[in-house]
Amino acid sequence: MTLPGILVACGHWDPEPWAAPFRAAGRPVAIWPDVGDPAAIRYVLAWGASSAVFADLPNLAAIFSLGAGVDHIVGKAELPDLPIVRVVDPDLTMRMTEWVVLQVLLHHRRQLAYLGQQQDRVWRELPQPPASAVRVGIMGLGELGQASAKVLASLGFEVAGWSRTPKTLPGISTFAGADTLPAFLARTDILVVLLPLTDATRGIIDAKLLAGLARDGALGGPVLINGGRGGLQVEADILAAIDAGTLIGASLDVFEQEPLPATSPLWSRRNIVITPHVAATSDADVLAAGIQRAIEDFEAGKPLENLVDVERGY
Amino acid sequence: MTLPGILVACGHWDPEPWAAPFRAAGRPVAIWPDVGDPAAIRYVLAWGASSAVFADLPNLAAIFSLGAGVDHIVGKAELPDLPIVRVVDPDLTMRMTEWVVLQVLLHHRRQLAYLGQQQDRVWRELPQPPASAVRVGIMGLGELGQASAKVLASLGFEVAGWSRTPKTLPGISTFAGADTLPAFLARTDILVVLLPLTDATRGIIDAKLLAGLARDGALGGPVLINGGRGGLQVEADILAAIDAGTLIGASLDVFEQEPLPATSPLWSRRNIVITPHVAATSDADVLAAGIQRAIEDFEAGKPLENLVDVERGY
Repeated sequence: MTLPGILVACGHWDPEPWAAPFRAAGRPVAIWPDVGDPAAIRYVLAWGASSAVFADLPNLAAIFSLGAGVDHIVGKAELPDLPIVRVVDPDLTMRMTEWVVLQVLLHHRRQLAYLGQQQDRVWRELPQPPASAVRVGIMGLGELGQASAKVLASLGFEVAGWSRTPKTLPGISTFAGADTLPAFLARTDILVVLLPLTDATRGIIDAKLLAGLARDGALGGPVLINGGRGGLQVEADILAAIDAGTLIGASLDVFEQEPLPATSPLWSRRNIVITPHVAATSDADVLAAGIQRAIEDFEAGKPLENLVDVERGY
Repeated sequence: MTLPGILVACGHWDPEPWAAPFRAAGRPVAIWPDVGDPAAIRYVLAWGASSAVFADLPNLAAIFSLGAGVDHIVGKAELPDLPIVRVVDPDLTMRMTEWVVLQVLLHHRRQLAYLGQQQDRVWRELPQPPASAVRVGIMGLGELGQASAKVLASLGFEVAGWSRTPKTLPGISTFAGADTLPAFLARTDILVVLLPLTDATRGIIDAKLLAGLARDGALGGPVLINGGRGGLQVEADILAAIDAGTLIGASLDVFEQEPLPATSPLWSRRNIVITPHVAATSDADVLAAGIQRAIEDFEAGKPLENLVDVERGY
């Protein structure tokens, strides 16, 4: 008996780490655009793929996104009405948490200023509030936002979270819905954005949002940290706020255009940290093994987990 | 009735924040070297003070160290045989934890390399192991070491601790005594030193210790983080290991000589982070309030807590 086949369609990524465990398990594997027998394809593993991938696969049963975000799939014109599974992997969650905690502490502890002083061989203590005097606000309380909130709270930060629908998290005050956004921003010194990219969130990090952040905080001004998606941010507005001093720092892992063009002025601002979309890069083999388990469970009759709601967009 | 008086002797620090709460409570306060009536002094609040401070105070009952380390007091020739109380303050502990977690993540996530790439406007992903593949070793499992161990373990790092006497910590493997040091170092990728400075620990971070760290780790070599005391480290040996590439990074908050002289070669190494002894700078008023409470409890008949063992030196 031949096991149902998979199609790997992952844009500019190397497909091999995704294909390998399935081949090893004796499953037919096709690599886009070489589909082979379309009828043999039961699952697509997709990342940044053309929407043509999903057409003309008569036995397709489910689509697996190779990353936590699904904006690269959802909204595509020819998306079939089939289950879409999001990667929810402890490894990916912990890597994002590492990045978020690092960036929060880096701004909180004025590490960029100390690195600048080091270059000049200057020994000078800078004013430093304790974490308990600094209010972190996390937009997006999915797996990633919740994990970051937990570690930041354990470090003593005053953490609040904002999400579209109400959530309850121990030790963290939560805000839900557009009506509460102004109050959430007004109590936030360090804003961490881990939202999914949807029609409702596109460009949400704009001049208006940044102007709503706390100005009276212990750090002397607000900080922006975006580990979500580049499409969430209006880079011209971030730059204007940095240059006006109304935003005192930023850490950006994602950009409107990636790779970030060498001509972008974001690169050169002393109080902006740029990382090249590496906040939560997981090992493909770890994630592929997780997808393999999910497919085996599905074939054994269990329901698929971590399904995307196409209507809401994540 | 006049309350027993205090003497504040804090070297080059501003004595006022330490004196203020006691004055406000109606207690006589003297500022070294202006002792006033020696018989009125019941407590000394000391930091980096001359040993002459403790002489000729007939009614002295206890000495309070204004920082977590007591090497500035213990070992002084004219130290009277009186209780010495160490500051153990949640604020100080959390600040040290912030600094340690920041420095561990900064090296783990190759932030210095990314900042270098940013200067050159280079978008390039660097190899990145997950925290679970990186072994952090903490030397010194007092309040500070334990608090750091806990947060680092929650971030997924494989954490072990080493201390002079055996300790048991949930989720963390512990080593005790000099005999276990080689095994502890051999399993350590990122070494965090939070030891007290004593005759037994002076210069402990030397060429031999650094050579004992793991070479086969996921980061490609070991990293040193010292938030303890400058006297623990042999800077020439650290520099030699960095220049030989046998140590791939370091974060130092403390130095053999402070301020670190502008001529020190440590300033200029790309993979060394220098902070000017600010890892756990607490607000004087927060700590002074804690000392005030301890004195009031003592005068109400309760035993003094957080006493220093002068024999072992901390």
